[in-house]
Amino acid sequence: MAITGHHLIAGQWLRANMPSFSSIAPRNKTQGAIIFAEATETEIHAAVAGAVAAFNLTRTYPAATRALLLDTIAAEIEALGDELLQVCDHETGLGLPRLTGERGRTCNQLRAFATHIREGSFVQAIIDTALPDRQPAPRPDIRRMVIPIGVVAVFTPNNFPLAFGVAGGDTASALAAGCPVIAKGHPSHPATSEMVAKAIHTALKKCHFPEGFFSLVQGASISVGQTLIQHSALAAVGFTGSLRGGRAIFDAAAARPKPIPVYAEMGSINPMVILPDAIATRGDALVRDIAGSVTQGSGQFCTNPGLMLLLDTPESRQLIQNVATTMQAQAPSLLLNAAVENGLVQRVQHTASKATVTLVTGGEVVSENGFCYANTVLQTNAADFLADPDLQEEHFGPVTLFVLCESIAQMKMVLQSLQGQLTATVHASDAEHDLAGELLDILRDITGRLILNGVPTGVEVVHAMQHGGPYPATTMPNSTSVGMTAIQRWLRPVAYQNMPDALLPDALKNANPLAIWRIVNNETTRAALA
Amino acid sequence: MAITGHHLIAGQWLRANMPSFSSIAPRNKTQGAIIFAEATETEIHAAVAGAVAAFNLTRTYPAATRALLLDTIAAEIEALGDELLQVCDHETGLGLPRLTGERGRTCNQLRAFATHIREGSFVQAIIDTALPDRQPAPRPDIRRMVIPIGVVAVFTPNNFPLAFGVAGGDTASALAAGCPVIAKGHPSHPATSEMVAKAIHTALKKCHFPEGFFSLVQGASISVGQTLIQHSALAAVGFTGSLRGGRAIFDAAAARPKPIPVYAEMGSINPMVILPDAIATRGDALVRDIAGSVTQGSGQFCTNPGLMLLLDTPESRQLIQNVATTMQAQAPSLLLNAAVENGLVQRVQHTASKATVTLVTGGEVVSENGFCYANTVLQTNAADFLADPDLQEEHFGPVTLFVLCESIAQMKMVLQSLQGQLTATVHASDAEHDLAGELLDILRDITGRLILNGVPTGVEVVHAMQHGGPYPATTMPNSTSVGMTAIQRWLRPVAYQNMPDALLPDALKNANPLAIWRIVNNETTRAALA
Repeated sequence: MAITGHHLIAGQWLRANMPSFSSIAPRNKTQGAIIFAEATETEIHAAVAGAVAAFNLTRTYPAATRALLLDTIAAEIEALGDELLQVCDHETGLGLPRLTGERGRTCNQLRAFATHIREGSFVQAIIDTALPDRQPAPRPDIRRMVIPIGVVAVFTPNNFPLAFGVAGGDTASALAAGCPVIAKGHPSHPATSEMVAKAIHTALKKCHFPEGFFSLVQGASISVGQTLIQHSALAAVGFTGSLRGGRAIFDAAAARPKPIPVYAEMGSINPMVILPDAIATRGDALVRDIAGSVTQGSGQFCTNPGLMLLLDTPESRQLIQNVATTMQAQAPSLLLNAAVENGLVQRVQHTASKATVTLVTGGEVVSENGFCYANTVLQTNAADFLADPDLQEEHFGPVTLFVLCESIAQMKMVLQSLQGQLTATVHASDAEHDLAGELLDILRDITGRLILNGVPTGVEVVHAMQHGGPYPATTMPNSTSVGMTAIQRWLRPVAYQNMPDALLPDALKNANPLAIWRIVNNETTRAALA
Repeated sequence: MAITGHHLIAGQWLRANMPSFSSIAPRNKTQGAIIFAEATETEIHAAVAGAVAAFNLTRTYPAATRALLLDTIAAEIEALGDELLQVCDHETGLGLPRLTGERGRTCNQLRAFATHIREGSFVQAIIDTALPDRQPAPRPDIRRMVIPIGVVAVFTPNNFPLAFGVAGGDTASALAAGCPVIAKGHPSHPATSEMVAKAIHTALKKCHFPEGFFSLVQGASISVGQTLIQHSALAAVGFTGSLRGGRAIFDAAAARPKPIPVYAEMGSINPMVILPDAIATRGDALVRDIAGSVTQGSGQFCTNPGLMLLLDTPESRQLIQNVATTMQAQAPSLLLNAAVENGLVQRVQHTASKATVTLVTGGEVVSENGFCYANTVLQTNAADFLADPDLQEEHFGPVTLFVLCESIAQMKMVLQSLQGQLTATVHASDAEHDLAGELLDILRDITGRLILNGVPTGVEVVHAMQHGGPYPATTMPNSTSVGMTAIQRWLRPVAYQNMPDALLPDALKNANPLAIWRIVNNETTRAALA
């Protein structure tokens, strides 16, 4: 497939003569041959206009029609074949095995949302029938469901070029909800974004959707995003990326004449507590699991465990040494781009230069051809950690910080001091379950997902998944960006009062023609109205 | 009951020597004898600290314990007897019949939330059990539910001193969710707020809740709210009131180092379309219903129908005259305070002074002792309305603006030009249902509640109610401030991964001890796990 460096603007592949950029291959730091353009204001506005026009047609499409589109997008991504993986690997250095898995996850996710909306109960239908004899006044019939919120902008991150890319979770859930999407591709892998956009474009045509239902705009500067977010017709925003980037988008959206919701997932340090008897009973497995989780994907995961809390015992100190040795023995892997490498260099230098912090291993660029940083272990103690909120900053890469605590009481103080997190993990033996319960109870207040005896990396795409958390993990603590309930971000409720069946959407009609679960006069049921 | 002018700060009735204020009786503009104080920063911080301490205890309380508190608050409000209604009537001029009804609604709402959380399914439990044999890696057990978000600030409006007051819908739903509440009383009815806070305080003690679970702070300046909203421990905000006030709170919350969600309901003009055959078949009833809805509560309702769209026909013009005559014949009722009266004077003057607008009736202060404004009808045409977005501004009071349209096509253009609304109404005969459907389809995009052949005033407290809408109706289009789903504003999801039953909350345990509806491996069920 020829990569052209164009944007997909409501069905047309366009580019104006704007400042341009190329990707840099992480393996050898060579600049890509294909020149991509920054989307212009005209192109961005055309994408939004196309999305608005599409929405006017698609908002009455049945869920099954959108489900077919999602399935077709998955099939078209698969039809791109190994070329997609090769292009993506060239741009990201993530390797074919990982990218093969990520492609599977991406397509499974599209199909899972298709299944979810085909089942149909996601519209949360609630019906309260009329009480014509109520005194002093009759009660009217009121029925409520959720409908698509409107045009959604999706800002994609560098670290999951497929699963959180332009056909990733935000796009899949927004299309499933019935919202047109304008995706901003990440400048680190523009060819990957273009190929996936072509798959979506083909699927739109095959499924007879208006082509404005999906657009791709590319850009390496912040102005593309800022222009997009200022458009009055935009209804909501999904973002995955850094705290700085997410906060900038959030601030811009809040400052609009008409503010719109921003669902930004901005990563976290994912604290992990390792209790003494867990070390005693399965120390070796812990070392392996921790080292594996910290270095997975070169540590470039939002759920990377960047903070390890242990009691200060000889066994804990030995565990730290063993993790360091294991990580040292693993070949360091590539980083995504120069910005990640530079950011990591500066951040680790900043942390390791503190008198309170020991560099156990790593802490340096690995001088090969590519972007690469040594697997790194840092260590401090709880008193110093508590005194220095700066130590809660993320090191985005294969880095973790061990914090030794004098007592469980002090460990609890550390947990209480933490900012919002995507995940929190406790490792405990069966004998430590009561203590684990106390710690989990504290951690529950700051996190979206609690894990016992596992690792936070690896976010299952299931109904029960919660991938979110209090700020700064996200800007919307009551939402998730992974799992089936992610669709709820792009829906808003509407009530229908006193409508005859003919004027009601199928989900709210008496006969329940969609056979969905509804709450009817306070009873959960799939039955038709009597 | 002695009104003291104190704040309720985590169980203590306090006041420092701060700038003070009194209420003004709308009936005779006399200043109240009781002097209330602006809450100080110290008092506000103490209220938040008390709420945080309370939350540490209450977040593990079972829903039944909170349900008992809600029922007890309702009983304690009723136990205040007629004195509450008299004090409230003195402060608001709303009259005893209306306030008797509003008290009933307030207590019913508290009890409805008690019933809702006793049933228990509001926690939205979702369970995906482990797949130990999955390849290439086992899938862990993941279970998700919603938990209280934390300390909530509630800003109460002037127009519903009880139902949206310090024990109104925002407080009731937040307490039901398990969130401590700090309510800011409206300065227009501080004695009412104090009496209701006393009822809540008594209920907290009777139910053995930590007294920091509810606090009341009073104040007439914006600084009380701004101080409250800056507190780092605040987790979310509920607001009902003006667009200006709501936007100021929203902006302050978005600018915090840690932004928090603001659920602001800021009213709207609630467009109503009246189709020709509806006029032909039941014109007299329409005149009565419209005049009644526009003047209900002196028009001081968020759902007041302030915009009427009709085809320009002799019958439509006659209907406008008839509505004007009917409204003229109704004695004008009191307004809540000087700010409402002054705002209305300025706003109507501004609108009526336009060359494009005709003042059909009213448009002046009624020179009695109290705050009072004539029932007012304004008229313009669709072309002028389309050319002047200023005409979409709310006239908060007994005022409506009729807009005559040359055609259905032009009427549709007007509907498409409208900002976000809480409600939209269409009056149509049976023969006009197809056209009504087209108009409702347009209106659906801008509103939270669609009504056929009814009036928007009168918001039922039922599961299916949606009281919200796109900005500027609210700052959160995916939420409601009335109805049982209002509780969802104060909840956020948490997932539990790989937890033994003993470490799971009851809602997620295998046996389903709460007997709630759950989604288990994608099936909606109340059954225990096999």
